[in-house]
Amino acid sequence: MIKETEDFYPSRTGNEETILPRIDPIVYGNVQPGIEYSLTLPQMENYQENGFIVLPDYMPEWVNPLQKEIESLRSLMAGREELITEPESNELRTVFKPFAFSHIIDQFSRHPKILTIARQLLGSDVYITQSRINIKPAFTGKSFPWHSDFETWHVEDGMPRMRAVTAWIMLNENNEYNGPLYVIPGSHKEYVSCAGVTGSRNYDQSLKKQEAGVPKPETMQRLLKNREIKGVYGNPGTVVFHECNLMHGSPDNISAMPRTLLMFVFNSCENKLVAPFCDQPPRPDYLRNTDSSAIE
Amino acid sequence: MIKETEDFYPSRTGNEETILPRIDPIVYGNVQPGIEYSLTLPQMENYQENGFIVLPDYMPEWVNPLQKEIESLRSLMAGREELITEPESNELRTVFKPFAFSHIIDQFSRHPKILTIARQLLGSDVYITQSRINIKPAFTGKSFPWHSDFETWHVEDGMPRMRAVTAWIMLNENNEYNGPLYVIPGSHKEYVSCAGVTGSRNYDQSLKKQEAGVPKPETMQRLLKNREIKGVYGNPGTVVFHECNLMHGSPDNISAMPRTLLMFVFNSCENKLVAPFCDQPPRPDYLRNTDSSAIE
Repeated sequence: MIKETEDFYPSRTGNEETILPRIDPIVYGNVQPGIEYSLTLPQMENYQENGFIVLPDYMPEWVNPLQKEIESLRSLMAGREELITEPESNELRTVFKPFAFSHIIDQFSRHPKILTIARQLLGSDVYITQSRINIKPAFTGKSFPWHSDFETWHVEDGMPRMRAVTAWIMLNENNEYNGPLYVIPGSHKEYVSCAGVTGSRNYDQSLKKQEAGVPKPETMQRLLKNREIKGVYGNPGTVVFHECNLMHGSPDNISAMPRTLLMFVFNSCENKLVAPFCDQPPRPDYLRNTDSSAIE
Repeated sequence: MIKETEDFYPSRTGNEETILPRIDPIVYGNVQPGIEYSLTLPQMENYQENGFIVLPDYMPEWVNPLQKEIESLRSLMAGREELITEPESNELRTVFKPFAFSHIIDQFSRHPKILTIARQLLGSDVYITQSRINIKPAFTGKSFPWHSDFETWHVEDGMPRMRAVTAWIMLNENNEYNGPLYVIPGSHKEYVSCAGVTGSRNYDQSLKKQEAGVPKPETMQRLLKNREIKGVYGNPGTVVFHECNLMHGSPDNISAMPRTLLMFVFNSCENKLVAPFCDQPPRPDYLRNTDSSAIE
């Protein structure tokens, strides 16, 4: 593949780590009066300012059916490369591309309560560039260090610009004890160009324990100078939309309750992937969906 | 050394993991009307029921002097075995027996605001059986799994009965993001007799990453059946007393703020250590103070 666009967000190029300005908009669409499920102006301003929005108890009726479906996928997909396990305990950690194996998950991803907002924020038709079920098992689920998803998707998958949003539903209660998402509100307005280079098949390692694309402590101190960490908590059925460049991490799950969530990354159809911005071949299809036709 | 007493709390004996009843009192002393700094009846009942008590903003005037003293100890004690570093980053994690190297820390440990309560809870004269400074560095400080201190002190140090209390002062704010203490209120009323056996010089490993004495997930599920995890938070200068058998753990420090605390374990002079309840020699003096004369 040929690099089709200029690299506006270089990272892991062997240079020193630095913070670059974001050059892309955050919200691409507009308020849509009369359109069911669309975000209000205050909600859009909240997303613009903080980089995420939480919709408490938004789709609770989906929790039980999705939990049951995940149980089925465990056996249905056993042995496939889309399944990722915990580094130490071999427990199920992630299922990639679940919509390709499940009718109900596919239906959920197209639900107007999800799709309307994804299209509104990105101001265009959208497609799913990545999807996964994340399970952080009770007691043994491990932490994930601070990172921007966009940094990885840009470098390793060739996502050219910041015009993607992750939508995810809590399938358990998410609280401070079961390894919740920690975010840094406002961090999506800056871009950390990381040190290092991307190794061959980095994803084999990074899906279990991320190292490349993790900012150094000094950089994190700078990002946190006028900002604070915030935990994202809620009941089962709560839905969160977070911007692709929002800095986030996640602590160990030290509780007796697993933390399971289903997520979809919506990318704008005007931001389709090009060749990766590193010297490695593209990641497999289950990490970097090659079908970029607009979702109906 | 000869085992001087019967083993009322066997653990790591090669048998299956099980939960045994606590046979010792929790509070040994009484309300002391008119005695300055002693706990009130509601405070003692709180400790009896939950296994710990938090005294918010109790000794804030000690925070800066103690922080400065710790800075001095870093260089003063460099290279000594009392210094323990992080498993991955080599940063300072723990200083053992700091009162032996610092006048101000020694003074703090004898302060009536601390000593009165320790004596009251244990109903006797007391001595320091272990003391340490714990530093959980920003971003890199690692989690500690669930454990009861008493289980280790009993098996590895020969503490015969449950009649000890840990007093500690927060030298930073402790919040949900910087690797705070997580406790299970009420868990001090049960004793987890762990599987496995104690290896030679287990402490070399366990001080960095504890494995022996860590209950299995199934056992933790039982302990948590009618109980909940609680994070212990507070401002710098807050002091906590927690019972020796309280089940506790601690998550990663994912924040930009280190978490530093100074702790003293007070043991009753009527509960002096005997030979370890395992087939290993006693741990070094800095982990198991051999001077058990009552503190004045």
